[in-house]
Amino acid sequence: MTKIITTIAAVLLAGTAFAADPSPADLRESALELFKPLPSTTPAVANNPITPDKIALGKALFFDPRMSASGVFSCNSCHNLGTGGDDNLETSIGHGWQKGPRNAPTVFNAVFNIAQFWDGRADDLAAQAKGPVQAGVEMANTPDQVVATLKSMPDYVTWFTASFPGEEDPTTFDNFAKAIEAFEATLITPAPFDAFLNGDDNAMDADQLKGLALFMDKGCSTCHAGVNVGGEGYYPFGLVEKPGAEVLPENDKGRFEVTKTADDSYVFRAAPLRNVAVTAPYFHSGKVWDLKQAVGIMGVSQLGQEINDEEAELIVAFLTSLTGKVPEVTYPILPAETADTPRPSGEVKN
Amino acid sequence: MTKIITTIAAVLLAGTAFAADPSPADLRESALELFKPLPSTTPAVANNPITPDKIALGKALFFDPRMSASGVFSCNSCHNLGTGGDDNLETSIGHGWQKGPRNAPTVFNAVFNIAQFWDGRADDLAAQAKGPVQAGVEMANTPDQVVATLKSMPDYVTWFTASFPGEEDPTTFDNFAKAIEAFEATLITPAPFDAFLNGDDNAMDADQLKGLALFMDKGCSTCHAGVNVGGEGYYPFGLVEKPGAEVLPENDKGRFEVTKTADDSYVFRAAPLRNVAVTAPYFHSGKVWDLKQAVGIMGVSQLGQEINDEEAELIVAFLTSLTGKVPEVTYPILPAETADTPRPSGEVKN
Repeated sequence: MTKIITTIAAVLLAGTAFAADPSPADLRESALELFKPLPSTTPAVANNPITPDKIALGKALFFDPRMSASGVFSCNSCHNLGTGGDDNLETSIGHGWQKGPRNAPTVFNAVFNIAQFWDGRADDLAAQAKGPVQAGVEMANTPDQVVATLKSMPDYVTWFTASFPGEEDPTTFDNFAKAIEAFEATLITPAPFDAFLNGDDNAMDADQLKGLALFMDKGCSTCHAGVNVGGEGYYPFGLVEKPGAEVLPENDKGRFEVTKTADDSYVFRAAPLRNVAVTAPYFHSGKVWDLKQAVGIMGVSQLGQEINDEEAELIVAFLTSLTGKVPEVTYPILPAETADTPRPSGEVKN
Repeated sequence: MTKIITTIAAVLLAGTAFAADPSPADLRESALELFKPLPSTTPAVANNPITPDKIALGKALFFDPRMSASGVFSCNSCHNLGTGGDDNLETSIGHGWQKGPRNAPTVFNAVFNIAQFWDGRADDLAAQAKGPVQAGVEMANTPDQVVATLKSMPDYVTWFTASFPGEEDPTTFDNFAKAIEAFEATLITPAPFDAFLNGDDNAMDADQLKGLALFMDKGCSTCHAGVNVGGEGYYPFGLVEKPGAEVLPENDKGRFEVTKTADDSYVFRAAPLRNVAVTAPYFHSGKVWDLKQAVGIMGVSQLGQEINDEEAELIVAFLTSLTGKVPEVTYPILPAETADTPRPSGEVKN
């Protein structure tokens, strides 16, 4: 509870530090206390050295629909690299046409999040990658069947061997997840905001700069800070005032399900805001399609203040400066099935 | 009926023209009477000049899941460029988890087919592209909603304008189909067989050459000829002997549904065999997963002869020489939705 009180205090104390029109240099100085530009190289991840072989394997796995029981869904189905790294659905549609419980977050820059999923239940991208492939409402597969599928295709075995040298049996579910993590670590999207942080006064336009000043002044950056402009900590949705059940459904208690601590009821990881302008709909419930409306809801629920129309527009302008350049990805040619490959099945098991 | 009798006569008269081990040069000479290598450039299509702008637009549309009502399926879902240009399912799973009626054919080299779909009901790829997007069991969309979706995203309107210069209202369902046709015309996959036809004696190995000789000797090439090694004409499945209902379901009368002519009962377009080794399962029913078994079924049903095990293996060896090099495709970054974009809906209408 101490943490939450501190958070509330920090939010409410956030003053109006900036004049209406601060100089880019002053704004940058303040911004660099809160935010960090993306690095120019692929970030390292724990216990998983990233190599070109592993990235290439991870890319193949990321796009391979045969990782799902039905043969219909790949990682890219819900984390589509062409549409902001997510699926732009309220919640994803998966195996048996079932709807997932929460909005699919973007895969872009996810490597920088403190943990994965809205409730942080996976420590890293490798742990995350094991989730959807097994979830009955998503890809509905099993680790054994994933490994059997991979081992049935000699090219995959060759690629795993090259990616995990020295391992006696490299084609494993753990390594499947590590390869996907390696590929996903390359999915970082430098944006005009990074160019601004790096010293380019012309990278963002006047409205975007005003929006950035407002974003810091009003206290948005209390939760949405760091390299991912969010994704660094957990906060109650409805810190000051709970939004309606349409936006914050009562039956999804967020991080409470992970920690079983009452304080964590309706606590979620603060959304990382990179590419937010191209990843509607918003919130874990996916109920809000308009970014300006989402900004307004945040103002009332998290900051206890009405953000007026002009302010919301400026903040949205700032948020568009977080839309980054997606790395060029060549569509992978996947190994062909063999007689040993488990057959796809759309059957829904209960 | 005359045509069928002629076909039967041609098939049954097919002699054993080759010695057990013909020279590559002799084999090439005979093969060039029946087959044609792929061209080195994108083929022209009728009434649709192919330009780089149109190819790029078509690629975006081909990969865009927002062309489906649910936002889940794109053309690439069932004609996956990473898995042989098809989905490797018996029949595709579509909107509402419904199963399609026939196996999805590969998009690779489809531009060379006499007409599209197993029953040839679409004259060309542009006509074909309009089918799945509207089919209730596939993408379940409507032309009006496709156009509304496209017009809601300014980048798409810009791309249509560049692709169809001089048109007053270029963002239309017809032009949507034409752009996809232009992209698909680029999806041609030169294979070792082409290199052999073009004069390279070493492009195919000894078994593949023997298999080619058998393929011509036994009469397979009576129906599977031309640049696509098939896809050029319509033939009764079960010309000599009908396969069982498992492979040839009674309720699918094939081209009869198109022509309403009794002669066309159980008539289908001969499958184009390029990339056949990577596009299991086989036949319009998608019931046969093993290529050797498929070759055996063809021998009995179409040629009235048992193809022995060794022969079938050699023919399969030849068929693997038809697996081609897929063009490098950079995954497209798609325009972001706007407030005007129709919302995705997974609802199944009856």
